[in-house]
Amino acid sequence: MTILTRDDCLKMDAVDPLKTYRDAFALPDGLIYLDGNSLGPQPKAAADLAADLVKRQWGQDLIKSWNTAGWFELPYKLGDKLGRLLGANPGEMIVTDSTGINIYKVLSLALGLNPDRKTILMENDNFPTDVYMAEGLLGQLGDEYDLKLVAGDDILDALTDDVAVVMVTEVNYKTGRLLDMKAIADKAHAVGALAAFDLCHSAGAVPVDLNAAGADLAVGCSYKYLNGGPGAPAFIFVAERHQNKAQQPLSGWWGHKAPFEFETRYRAGEGISQMASGTQPILSLAMVDCGLSLFLDVDMAQVRQKSVKLCDMFIELVESRCGAWGFELNTPRDAVKRGSQVSFNHSDGYAIVKALIAKDVIGDFRAPQNMRFGFAPLYVRYVDVWDAVDRLADIMESGEWQKEIYHARDAVT
Amino acid sequence: MTILTRDDCLKMDAVDPLKTYRDAFALPDGLIYLDGNSLGPQPKAAADLAADLVKRQWGQDLIKSWNTAGWFELPYKLGDKLGRLLGANPGEMIVTDSTGINIYKVLSLALGLNPDRKTILMENDNFPTDVYMAEGLLGQLGDEYDLKLVAGDDILDALTDDVAVVMVTEVNYKTGRLLDMKAIADKAHAVGALAAFDLCHSAGAVPVDLNAAGADLAVGCSYKYLNGGPGAPAFIFVAERHQNKAQQPLSGWWGHKAPFEFETRYRAGEGISQMASGTQPILSLAMVDCGLSLFLDVDMAQVRQKSVKLCDMFIELVESRCGAWGFELNTPRDAVKRGSQVSFNHSDGYAIVKALIAKDVIGDFRAPQNMRFGFAPLYVRYVDVWDAVDRLADIMESGEWQKEIYHARDAVT
Repeated sequence: MTILTRDDCLKMDAVDPLKTYRDAFALPDGLIYLDGNSLGPQPKAAADLAADLVKRQWGQDLIKSWNTAGWFELPYKLGDKLGRLLGANPGEMIVTDSTGINIYKVLSLALGLNPDRKTILMENDNFPTDVYMAEGLLGQLGDEYDLKLVAGDDILDALTDDVAVVMVTEVNYKTGRLLDMKAIADKAHAVGALAAFDLCHSAGAVPVDLNAAGADLAVGCSYKYLNGGPGAPAFIFVAERHQNKAQQPLSGWWGHKAPFEFETRYRAGEGISQMASGTQPILSLAMVDCGLSLFLDVDMAQVRQKSVKLCDMFIELVESRCGAWGFELNTPRDAVKRGSQVSFNHSDGYAIVKALIAKDVIGDFRAPQNMRFGFAPLYVRYVDVWDAVDRLADIMESGEWQKEIYHARDAVT
Repeated sequence: MTILTRDDCLKMDAVDPLKTYRDAFALPDGLIYLDGNSLGPQPKAAADLAADLVKRQWGQDLIKSWNTAGWFELPYKLGDKLGRLLGANPGEMIVTDSTGINIYKVLSLALGLNPDRKTILMENDNFPTDVYMAEGLLGQLGDEYDLKLVAGDDILDALTDDVAVVMVTEVNYKTGRLLDMKAIADKAHAVGALAAFDLCHSAGAVPVDLNAAGADLAVGCSYKYLNGGPGAPAFIFVAERHQNKAQQPLSGWWGHKAPFEFETRYRAGEGISQMASGTQPILSLAMVDCGLSLFLDVDMAQVRQKSVKLCDMFIELVESRCGAWGFELNTPRDAVKRGSQVSFNHSDGYAIVKALIAKDVIGDFRAPQNMRFGFAPLYVRYVDVWDAVDRLADIMESGEWQKEIYHARDAVT
């Protein structure tokens, strides 16, 4: 790519086939939001839906809304809808609980489906909760079980015939590195293992086709690129061929075969319903529909194409304009190996991110020195990339980032 | 109690010390809502809070709200606040996840705290999810573990020195029967067992003092008498003396000692924080504050006094006015043994409840023949009890309940 001007960016925005989607989001004026990989912005439709949920569905219709507003069916309805985006068939996905809880379910299920194997294989820089949940599960099951942690590049080699299930994050939360799900699933199947994927940083960010990749199990969250709202419930995918063959242990009444019979003993629900556990937080759950609906209109190939350009431009501009200040790219340069985010390491990354935030460029920081920027093509413009780097250059040239206030640590970053 | 007139009820309402609270709820005009034991009505404050959460906290402040709006601290802040109502000390309770997930955590924790024992004791008509979760947990742990189910009246006798933990619902979801938490905890401790309580139908309904009762562990939901909103997150209590001595296995990143260090391996958070697992559904979670705030103003002794009167009146009026139609009381007649709900069995209970709903009296039905009515003293008036029974008598006298439409089954009742 040749060096760009701001005008080039404006011209690219003018012909962007996705440009109309930005208006569907309630972005604050003047803010350059490059943190949709942490919390997606609010779809404008969410404000009306929240009012309807609280005032009419809860306030006026009360308990009847379990039927009339379809609350009980929401995990299934949203799961099927999300499945269309992620290459799952109807009945293979529900939206429920948190990503962590769902990780526990899929790992438990995988061990049940592959009962002669005792090893879970994971990447050592998986999002930590994936590893933590595996540790919690294996701590219950006894010493014959084993958690094998290897580097992302070594996953294929580490897939040996003792592995029950491999679980990796398709797009790494820190580096944005994109793994090849199909290659991992193929190798897993060749050695008799199951392949489970964490799609937290994939869903809505890159094209995903779970069934084409041969994925056995998957989880992911709805509040990043899918714009479902803060902490909105997560999703869980179980390929149809694995349903009804083993049970996950968080066997709550929503996963019972006949929840409203209130039977004394558990009977597993059929199909994906056994993945449900308890009563869901309806307000947060229902809001997931707003962001999801936008995606079902969109051509994900166009999303991917724009995402690659935004990320390529950001890398090029940071390196050309700020290269002197010691930023080190912490994301694959090759777009094929990258999700929709770009990270740079810098020993003062924490302060620099805070100085950028003070200039209305929102990225985030992940310890120890990772500055992380997400590029969500539905609302990030090419000119935003130019302006973000321009402000970064300002901060570095002026020494603004060295101010004391930017070095003071917040509770959550 | 002598037979009442409607005027007597109006007079009692006029001098009710809790009468001003009704105005804090957005109840539809003319509706008699006796289902707060299933879904509490909407506190009026919830509408403004929802708008603020969606438009300002999410829409404008975006990712910053994790700090500025205190999202990350919500489970702790709400837990401490709820603890004041339920007799827990600060740091002994958080609001998080679903009741079912929290049951799994407390039962796992109890087995970890009492590692030489292998038996979980429960009531056979606990709310089913309590039993289902115990089954899921024990299915993972192996054949040496055992689930012992006995009738509620036999709990004390069944507390023998092989029991690791007894878990019962203080107020039974069907019958409203109130167990004596202190007697159960005392007996549990005498035999070396732990006592865990499900407070779903207690919190906000009856005075609860977890520490005075000697409870070791507890869970409960926020969306019934606490009016937290549909499916709002549940709570979990771990007495301080049991903290940091064992781990629950749903060890997600929110329960890590340093969640934002993103360490590869799990280190258990201190105190109640280890009970947290994954990212919480913030919209649903934050709304819990609206109902909870009302309760912190209230004298629970007054709530209990009114609750007893409402329930006594309902029993007396149904029996005197509708006794001829075969209603059988399915709730202890003695108020000391009763929560804040009254159930009657009737072989056509399903149709009768639907006919009542058509006349704007909302109760609910639990299979096989239980008609259930909750009496929440903050918004149910004495005159509502009179009018509800009056309409029930109308339905029975006119034969209205026999209509076909009331016998057709809905998906969720």
